[in-house]
Amino acid sequence: MPIVDVHTHIYPPTYVDLLRSRKTAPYIRTFPDAPDSPRLIILPGEDDPSTPSTSRGRPIGPEYFDMAQKIAFMDQHKIDTSVISLANPWLDFLSAEEAGEVARRINGDVEKICAAYPGRLYAFGTLPLSADMETIVGEVKRLGGMKYMRGVIIGTSGLGKGLDDEALDPVYAALEESGQLIFLHPHYGLPASVYGPRASEYGHVLPLALGFPLETTIAVARMLLSGVWDRFKKLNVLLAHSGGTLPFLAGRIESCIQHDGYLKKLGKTKNRRHVWDILKTNIYLDAVIYSEVGLKAAVDASGADRLLFAGTDHPFFPPLEEAKEWHSVSTNYSAISKAFEGDGDLARGVLGGNAVRILRLGE
Amino acid sequence: MPIVDVHTHIYPPTYVDLLRSRKTAPYIRTFPDAPDSPRLIILPGEDDPSTPSTSRGRPIGPEYFDMAQKIAFMDQHKIDTSVISLANPWLDFLSAEEAGEVARRINGDVEKICAAYPGRLYAFGTLPLSADMETIVGEVKRLGGMKYMRGVIIGTSGLGKGLDDEALDPVYAALEESGQLIFLHPHYGLPASVYGPRASEYGHVLPLALGFPLETTIAVARMLLSGVWDRFKKLNVLLAHSGGTLPFLAGRIESCIQHDGYLKKLGKTKNRRHVWDILKTNIYLDAVIYSEVGLKAAVDASGADRLLFAGTDHPFFPPLEEAKEWHSVSTNYSAISKAFEGDGDLARGVLGGNAVRILRLGE
Repeated sequence: MPIVDVHTHIYPPTYVDLLRSRKTAPYIRTFPDAPDSPRLIILPGEDDPSTPSTSRGRPIGPEYFDMAQKIAFMDQHKIDTSVISLANPWLDFLSAEEAGEVARRINGDVEKICAAYPGRLYAFGTLPLSADMETIVGEVKRLGGMKYMRGVIIGTSGLGKGLDDEALDPVYAALEESGQLIFLHPHYGLPASVYGPRASEYGHVLPLALGFPLETTIAVARMLLSGVWDRFKKLNVLLAHSGGTLPFLAGRIESCIQHDGYLKKLGKTKNRRHVWDILKTNIYLDAVIYSEVGLKAAVDASGADRLLFAGTDHPFFPPLEEAKEWHSVSTNYSAISKAFEGDGDLARGVLGGNAVRILRLGE
Repeated sequence: MPIVDVHTHIYPPTYVDLLRSRKTAPYIRTFPDAPDSPRLIILPGEDDPSTPSTSRGRPIGPEYFDMAQKIAFMDQHKIDTSVISLANPWLDFLSAEEAGEVARRINGDVEKICAAYPGRLYAFGTLPLSADMETIVGEVKRLGGMKYMRGVIIGTSGLGKGLDDEALDPVYAALEESGQLIFLHPHYGLPASVYGPRASEYGHVLPLALGFPLETTIAVARMLLSGVWDRFKKLNVLLAHSGGTLPFLAGRIESCIQHDGYLKKLGKTKNRRHVWDILKTNIYLDAVIYSEVGLKAAVDASGADRLLFAGTDHPFFPPLEEAKEWHSVSTNYSAISKAFEGDGDLARGVLGGNAVRILRLGE
C-alpha cells in the first residue's frame, strides 16, 4: 500500500513571480542587511515592524518552488504520492480583474508539474474567489476535467464574508456535482489582540498553534450552522490539521446548539444534520496533529477510514538544526504508528489507502 | 465513592445585589415588555441591540441564587458534593477601591453557605484582581485559612494583561505556598469579528462553543510560554471545559515551539518544561466536554487520575423543554460511562474519587 501525503504545499513559478512583485503581505522580499536571503512574509500583520520576532516572516529557498526538492523530500520520508496544493493565502488578495487569469495560469502550471511525475503527484486546484461567480464556477468545471486535479484548496474567507455566505452556493453546487472535494485550510488566524501584550516574545507559536486551528473550526461551525450540508448533502471537505479543534469540540458545539434558546425559537435545534453525522459523512481529516492524543480523537470523531496522512505540511516546519528526517514529519508518523499499534490495516489506510480510495488516485 | 461536581456556579446575595445595581454588562435587568422576567447579561458585547438573538442575555431565576435549588439539583442528579464557585466575570469589573471589600464579603457569604450544608458544599474563592497586590495576596492568605475553601476561580485577564503577566508572580507564589489551586475559567471569548457577519443568526453558539474553549487554551499557552510553571513548579490549575482545546492541540503547541526560529535564537526551545509534563503534573481537567471523543482525549492527555467530574456547569445550559434530568449533565455522565466501560475504578475516580483526593474533601 502506498504512502500518500495530502497536505503538502507548493509555490509554482507564476506564484513566486507574483509574490516577488508585491510590496505588502503576501510577498517575498530581502532586507538590506541580508540581500542574499529572501524572506517569505505571508501572515496578516506579520510584517508589523513593532513585532521583531515575526516581522521578517521565514526564509524561503528552493524547497518552496523546486519540484526536484519536493520529490527528494518525498523519497527521504518514504512518501510515494503527494497531492500538492498552492500555499496560503492562495489568490485571496487578487483583484476581481486579475484573479481569473492568474488562477487559470497557476492551475495549468500545477497540472503540468503533476504530469511531469506521473503517479507521484496529484493536486488540489486554486479558485479565483475574488472574481465574478461565472469565472469561479467556470474554473471549478475546468479543474473537474483535468487529469491530476482532485479538488480545490480554499481558505476561510470565501468571497470575503466567510464560508457561511449563501452566495457561495453555486460554487458548492459545482464542486458537489463534479465530485471534487474542498481542502479547507486556515490563513487569517485570529486578531492579534487575543494573544496579549507579550505575544511577540513567543515568535509564531500562538497564531500558528492556536489561531490556525480555531480559524478552521469557526469556519466549519459556520458552514454547519448555516446549513451548507443540509443543502449539499454530498459536499466533501478535507479539514487541515485534523479538523483544527473540531473532533475535541464537536460535543460542545452540539450541546450549545441543543441548548440555545434563540435557535430553538427559530425551530433550528431540530430538523438539521448533527455534527457527528457530518463528521462521518462529509468531512475528512488530515493527520497533521503531532500527537497520539490528537490523532486518536480525530479517528474517534470521523472514523479511521476518513483520516488521511498528511503528515508533512511541507515545506513549512523545517528542522531548525541539520537533520536527516524532518522532526515534524516523524512526529506525525509516530502518532499514527502508536495510535494503531497492532492494527496494520487501519494504519495503512491512514498512511495511503484512504487517500487512494477517496481521491481515486491511479485513475 | 461519592460523586463530586467541581464545576458549578453560584450567585451569592451580595453579587446579585451588585449586578442588579448596574446598568452595563455584567448586570441583571428587565425589559418593559416583560417586567417580571429578569434577564442576566454577562458576556462582553452581549447587550448590543444590533444582535437581537443574544442582546437579552438569558433568563435568571432562583436556580442562580437559591441554595435550596442547588441542593435539589444535586440530589436529582445524584451529586453528593459540589465545589461551588462564583460565576464569570467574577469581580473583574470592579474598581481598585471597591474590589477588596466586595471580595471579602462574597468569600465570607460563600464560606457560610458551605457551612450550612456540611459535607455537601466546598468552594473556590474569588480574588479582587483589580485591587492592589497587597489586597489580592491578603485575600489568598485569608482564603487559605477558611474551612471550606479549596482554591480560587479566576478568569483569563489576570491584572488586566493576561496570565503571562509577571506582576502576577506574588499571587502565584501565595497560591502555591498555601496549596490552593486555580480554577481557570473563560469569560471574554474572542472578538465578535471572528464569527463573521451572520454570527447573530446563530444565537450564543459560536462564542460559547468555540470562543470560550479557545480563550482558555490561549491563556494556558501564554502561562506555559512565559515560564509560569518553570518558576512555580507546584502551582496547580484546574482547567474548565476539559482544558478548552489543550488536550487536542498540545502536540501542535509543542511542535510549534520546537520549530520556532525566534524562540530557538533566544535559547527557549530547550531547557523548559514541556506541555505534556505540565499536563501530567500541574494541570487538572474537568469533564465538561459533552462527548466520549473529547473525554478520552482529556484522559489521554492528563491521565484518568487528573480528571474531575464537573459534569454540570449548573445553572447554565438548562434544558429548554420540561425535563426531569438536565440533558447537559446526562451527556457528560454518559461520556464518562462510555469512555471507561469495564473499568469502574477509573470511572469512580473521575466521578468523585479524584476530587476527594486532590481537593482534600472531608478534611
